[in-house]
Amino acid sequence: MSQFDNVSVLKQANVYFDGKCVSHTILLADGTRKSVGVILPSKLVFNTGAPEIMELIAGACNVKLAGETAATTYTGGQSFNVPGDSSFEIEVTDTLHYVCHFG
Amino acid sequence: MSQFDNVSVLKQANVYFDGKCVSHTILLADGTRKSVGVILPSKLVFNTGAPEIMELIAGACNVKLAGETAATTYTGGQSFNVPGDSSFEIEVTDTLHYVCHFG
Repeated sequence: MSQFDNVSVLKQANVYFDGKCVSHTILLADGTRKSVGVILPSKLVFNTGAPEIMELIAGACNVKLAGETAATTYTGGQSFNVPGDSSFEIEVTDTLHYVCHFG
Repeated sequence: MSQFDNVSVLKQANVYFDGKCVSHTILLADGTRKSVGVILPSKLVFNTGAPEIMELIAGACNVKLAGETAATTYTGGQSFNVPGDSSFEIEVTDTLHYVCHFG
């Protein structure tokens, strides 16, 4: 499915890391919050509050979860899970389009 | 109104100018297409197909429409109109959050 239907979209974006990551928050009819975003080629560390599922729509990245010694490569069509109250290091090698699912 | 309700959102973003501009397309219930986006501090020239209304949610920029000799400053809460089949030069001085209305 290439789009979300029947959702609300916040007009103001979330801008992280000097714009290397830009996302917009969407709210589903049942109140669930997700975000749709882009990460430009860069190497960043994100901290999580709630657990996250990162669904990759397009692009490519190498991801190392907290405690891992080796990175795993993910590309568009794949997803990876991040535990809550944790962090992950992500090296984006091809501009990443993603949906972030929380909780 | 800080959000759009009952819309569809395309999961894949539009990335222009090496990521200086990132937007997501939204579709209203009546089929109208808009976009919500961010322009990072930079000086860019955009070309228009359809006429556009740029509604600024937050940030600041200096805008010079095609044919204008002086730029006009706009900030969050303001809007500016761009004719179709034209262009505008925009110098973003504070990260711009915007909604683009077409047609």
